[in-house]
Parts: sequence; C-alpha cells; structure tokens
Amino acid sequence: MIYLDNSATTKPHPEVLKSFEQVSTNFFANPSSIHQLGGDTEKLLIKSKQQIANLLQVKDDEIIFTSGGTEGNNIAIKGIALQHQGRGKHIITTEIEHPSVFEACKSLESLGFQVTYLPVNRDGIVSVEDVESAITNETILISVMHVNNEIGTIQPVKEIGELAKKHPKLFFHVDHVQGLGKLDLQLNDSGIDLCTMSGHKIHGLKGTGVLYCRSGVKLFPLFHGGEQEFKVRSGTENLAGAVSFVKALRLIKERQKNQVQQLQALSQYLRQELKKIDEIMINTPENAAPHIVNFSIPGLKPEVMIHTLGKQGIFISTKSACSSKDLDESRIVKACGYDSTRSKSALRVSLSYDNTMEEIRIFVSKLKEALNQLKDVME
Amino acid sequence: MIYLDNSATTKPHPEVLKSFEQVSTNFFANPSSIHQLGGDTEKLLIKSKQQIANLLQVKDDEIIFTSGGTEGNNIAIKGIALQHQGRGKHIITTEIEHPSVFEACKSLESLGFQVTYLPVNRDGIVSVEDVESAITNETILISVMHVNNEIGTIQPVKEIGELAKKHPKLFFHVDHVQGLGKLDLQLNDSGIDLCTMSGHKIHGLKGTGVLYCRSGVKLFPLFHGGEQEFKVRSGTENLAGAVSFVKALRLIKERQKNQVQQLQALSQYLRQELKKIDEIMINTPENAAPHIVNFSIPGLKPEVMIHTLGKQGIFISTKSACSSKDLDESRIVKACGYDSTRSKSALRVSLSYDNTMEEIRIFVSKLKEALNQLKDVME
Ligand SMILES: Cc1ncc(COP(=O)(O)O)c(C=O)c1O
Ligand SMILES: Cc1ncc(COP(=O)(O)O)c(C=O)c1O
Repeated sequence: MIYLDNSATTKPHPEVLKSFEQVSTNFFANPSSIHQLGGDTEKLLIKSKQQIANLLQVKDDEIIFTSGGTEGNNIAIKGIALQHQGRGKHIITTEIEHPSVFEACKSLESLGFQVTYLPVNRDGIVSVEDVESAITNETILISVMHVNNEIGTIQPVKEIGELAKKHPKLFFHVDHVQGLGKLDLQLNDSGIDLCTMSGHKIHGLKGTGVLYCRSGVKLFPLFHGGEQEFKVRSGTENLAGAVSFVKALRLIKERQKNQVQQLQALSQYLRQELKKIDEIMINTPENAAPHIVNFSIPGLKPEVMIHTLGKQGIFISTKSACSSKDLDESRIVKACGYDSTRSKSALRVSLSYDNTMEEIRIFVSKLKEALNQLKDVME
Repeated sequence: MIYLDNSATTKPHPEVLKSFEQVSTNFFANPSSIHQLGGDTEKLLIKSKQQIANLLQVKDDEIIFTSGGTEGNNIAIKGIALQHQGRGKHIITTEIEHPSVFEACKSLESLGFQVTYLPVNRDGIVSVEDVESAITNETILISVMHVNNEIGTIQPVKEIGELAKKHPKLFFHVDHVQGLGKLDLQLNDSGIDLCTMSGHKIHGLKGTGVLYCRSGVKLFPLFHGGEQEFKVRSGTENLAGAVSFVKALRLIKERQKNQVQQLQALSQYLRQELKKIDEIMINTPENAAPHIVNFSIPGLKPEVMIHTLGKQGIFISTKSACSSKDLDESRIVKACGYDSTRSKSALRVSLSYDNTMEEIRIFVSKLKEALNQLKDVME
C-alpha cells in the first residue's frame, strides 16, 4: 500500500496508541474526583499540558484540549464572536479556509454577524494589505489558516500577526492543522490569540486536538458544564487522548527537525516529474508546504484516477477529505482564479514522514500508466 | 482497590480498548476520502451506527456520535435553542440537572432566553404537573434527566414524554448518561426527541458518546465544517471511538440483563447497613437507580472521609465529580429541601457491575471504623 492521503488523515503511530491504552487502563479515574485516584489523573493531565506548552513554547494555561481541528476552529471563532459581539460583529477571513472555518463563519452570518471573505492570488495567498484595509471599528476577529489543506499554500500569518498587534481590540485566529509538524509557527508574542491543532493529522488519534488560547482571551464556551479546561471546554477530560497527543506532538516535532528536508525532497521530485507530463497542471505554488502537491488533469474526472490508482493500492485524493463526497469543483482551486476545467479535475498528493522516494517513483510511474489507459475516457 | 466512584467514571473494559486499538490501526483512513480505504472506514462507520441503533431500537439516522455527555447535552440544548428561537425563547428544566445541562441553560439566559428551573420534592423528583403548568406558547424545549448523578433519583421521563407528545411544537431532551445500562429507556415513539449518552460511564472510553436525535429534528450545529454526522456534528469521525462505543454499549446491555438484580442487591444491602449507623442520613430515595447511594454525615467534612477511606484503597466521592472541586454544598441535595448541614456533608457511593458483595461489606466496615476514629473531628 502506498498511502498518499496524509492531509486527510494519518496512520496513528504505534507508540501513540500504546500511551492511549496505558493511560486508559492505569489512569482511568476522573480528574475531578477528589480522591487519590482522581488526584493522580489530574496530575497527569496537568503534566501533559505542561509538556505540550513546552513543545509549543507557550504557557500551560494556554492549552485547551479539544476533540479535534473542527472543534478547535469552531470554539475559537464562535467563542470570540459570541463573547465579544458587544464590541462589534465583523469578522475577516479568506476564501480558502477549511470548511470548519468557512462554515462556522457562514453560520455566524445567520446570527447577524458580518463576514468579509478575502480573495487570494493565483498562488492561493491572501494579501496582508487586503487584511489591513478590511479592518473596521466593528472587527473583532481575523481568522486565516497557516497552510491550506488542498493546495499547500502558506499564508503570511506572521505578518498578519504583526498587523493584529497594532489592533489590540481584535483577535487573531490561525488554523494550524496542516502546518503542525511541517512548518514552524511562533505562537508566543506573535499577535496570534488562538491557534487550532488536530491530533489525527500528525499520526495522533482521531478525537484529539489542542486549541492554543492566549492568556486572558475570553471565549464563550460551546460546551458549558463542569468547567474543565479553564471553563472553556467542559466535559470529563479525555486524559488518555491528551497524553497520546503529547506523544504524537513530540514525535512529529522530532521528525520535523530530522526529516523535513527529506520530505521536501520527495515533493520536489514529485513536482519535477509531474511537470514533465503534458496532461498535468500543477496547482500548488513553488513555495508551498513540504507535504502537499495538488495538480489537475483537465478533462479527467478525478474520481476515475483515484479509483484506477486505488485498485493498485495507491491512495490519493480529490480536494480535501472534508468535502470529497461532494464531487463538484474545488472551492479553493477556483478561488485561485483557475477555470472550472481545472478546478473540477484537481487531485491531491499529501505526504507524511513515512513516505519514501521509492513510493513516489512507483506513484509517478503508475500515474503515467493510468493516464495512458484513461486517455480514451478523457474529454 | 475498591472503586465505588463509578458515576464519576468507570474503568474501560479491556475488550473496548482492544476494539479501539484494532480500528485505529486497521481502519485509520478518513471516511470522507473517496478511495477504497476511505470507503472501508465509511462502511464500518455506518455499521457501527446500525449496531447502536439496533441496541437502542431506533433508526440509524438518529445516531450522532459525540465526544461525550457534556457535548451531547450542549448540542441538544443549544442546538434547539439557536435553531428554533424564532418560535419562542422559553426552556423548561429542573433544579437538579447535571452542570452540562444547568450551565448550558444559564448560558442561554445570557443570550436572551428565558429558563424555568422546576423544583423537586424531597426525593428529588420533579412533578409532571409542574412541567405541564410551566409550558407556555413560547416554550421550545423541555430538558429533564433520567437518573440524577448525585442521588440516583429517577425522573418521570416517560410521563413527561407523553406530555411532550401533546405539544408537538416543543422538543423534549433527556440526559440519559446515568441511566444507560442500568435502567431501560424507550426512545422510539416516546415523545423524547433528544437523548444524551456517554461512553466513559459504561466502561467505554472517555471522548466518546452518542446523541439520539429523532428523525426530522433540526439542530443548530455547534461544530460547522465538513458536514459529518448528518451535518449536526462536523469533524473527522473518531471511528475507533465509535466502534468502541458499540462494544461498550453491547456489553453493558448484556450485563444489565443478567446482573441488574445483583447490582440492586448490593445497593439494598448497602442502604440497610447504612441505616443502622446513627451518624448517617441517607439522601437517595428508596426507588432510585440501582447504582447510586448518597448519604450525609452531618458535621463531618466529606473530604475528610474520602481521604480516610482513600488511604485504605477505597474510593467514593462527594457530590458529582464535575463539581467536586468546589467543596461547597451540594446543589442537588439542597434542592431536595435538606438543610445545609446535610447538603454540605453528602457522600456518594456509585456502583458498577464489577463490584462485589464482599467489597460492599469491606466498605461498610471501614466506614464504621473511620466514623469511630473521626468522631473527634466532627462538629
Ligand atoms: C486546515 C484544516 N483545518 C481543520 C481541519 C479539521 O480538523 P479535524 O479533522 O480534526 O476536525 C482540517 C482537516 O480536516 C484541516 O485540514
Ligand atoms: C447525568 C450526567 N450528565 C452528563 C454528564 C457529562 O458527561 P461527560 O462526562 O461524558 O461529559 C455526566 C457525567 O459527568 C452525568 O453524570
């Protein structure tokens, strides 16, 4: 099997699963229980928070455990909107956010908020000047992703952070789900108030995630209740999930340090080989994240290629998994200004540190073979 | 170790953990991916929904996977409130709901909703007549729990369901977190529109849960995004968690069938022994759920008893775990009309099918010993 759909999800690392299992068995008590078993689990919970804070170079009380990236994005966006609507009801975001940001913003429109969806250029990049000019007295939130999940574009979140610092009344949220473990992102003193991460994209477990929430930033909770997670996210803590996230984060940070060049080499090689194929047009810009290569084969329905490769044990995807079922065009590729032949025929290869050069070679050769076979069905 | 804090959380069953691990490893793909691996995980997801629906005797499309009971309660309550506020902004609940219901309702008050918190009698039971008289033209939701988590009282949810049927414009939500696996609750054709369940209270995993949402009932989602879970709960599905929930539910239903009398015998024995102790006043009414016995030792700080027993490896709790950190009085025992000496000295024993008569005997004898030792510190 050659699995090249790592932006949809990754295979959990065996060590991650092992820590989940051990904690589930040995620290099963409720951290809120005041007996000793509860105290032990609470200590481990605090320790996992410290470890994550250390790895991200932020403070312990800035780590909120969540059930994943979608939850993190929704807590951040709706939490700011509902909490701070007294100040203003305007939100700035981009046209190429993940559905969990895009649809969260749309839902706020139905509750009376006004949202500006900024356009992106051909490379899928939003302009910092556009962000600046969109800011009004009513703006309470800017939400811009770090790395785009479909085409791998890196947004100027550092610069937007600097801009946000000059407007202390508004909050800045970054969806870091695809960037984590691939590209560094400074959180502390960055102008970033909120930052979403997801476990299952870094060989962690589904159902786990972290939201960075800068000290002092108040959110309207989506889950009220027992006031866990500094009152931001009530509910009995998934301690085993939290510890498994620590493990996944530590492992991915190590691999980023040691293997990111190797990952870059894989995607460089892939780009170079794809460029040689006449039928293929690459949608991912040159300076993108190291793990995503998006390309179109105009005239070919992407699902046909996916199934052809799938039969040979090679797994790639259309668009993002979250919208794959809707086989229409890619909202992201379209937002980059490409026409519908291109946005309707986009395919995505997304790599992990587990992939090898040999796998990429096989993929390229099978892709070429498939192209030759499929020429007949192409329009 | 004698663990008697099963209403706070239970120890995951080894088979539950095993299925989590197997699914995480062998079905790691994203169910939304259109390649074959994605298709396989999607099939398993659909199958787990069918299995849960069968066990609960409802329809497949009425099962929403969540991250737990707090999420389920919040999705249900806020989801109805935000979706149907055009019809009216009045909610009816009771004074003895779990914080995840109580605080969710309070939060809606801050958003302009009006909430009636109905009183309960000495046994902690709400009157169906009170519910009926509280209904106005503006009422959109009734939320009443099945079994109270602190004192084990069973609410007349069947009767309230019949009442709700007569008011087709309002929705009825039941928090079934403490009832599941201990007492039957008919969902189909019951007047119940929404019903919350949590995995970790039935020897399942933390971070897992199910919300029953009757076909046709529309909720404003708390998580927008990729439209998973019939658009009600977006986010990459925690398939391993879902399968582990199936396993936990099946096991607990079997144990309910075969062992519930045994469980009743344990709590009956415990009540009987506690009654013989002069210093002890039992707060749990006679006809309560089979797994909870709440009692007060007026004049003794509950945490003192908990620590004394804890040193001997016996674990019981104060109030509910979710509010244990706040060592003030029990909101629930107070709502039953007891004075503060009683509501400030409440202790809870909560059983699981794993507990034995021998353990209860040891607990009673250690409790008596502790009482003798602690007489000096009592006021
Ligand atoms: C950029 C981005 N944001 C958010 C998410 C949502 O995260 P999750 O799948 O953990 O809900 C994803 C993945 O689906 C993503 O790629
Ligand atoms: C009656 C009741 N409802 C809801 C909850 C919340 O469930 P969870 O712990 O899964 O968030 C609990 C337990 O804490 C409970 O006892």
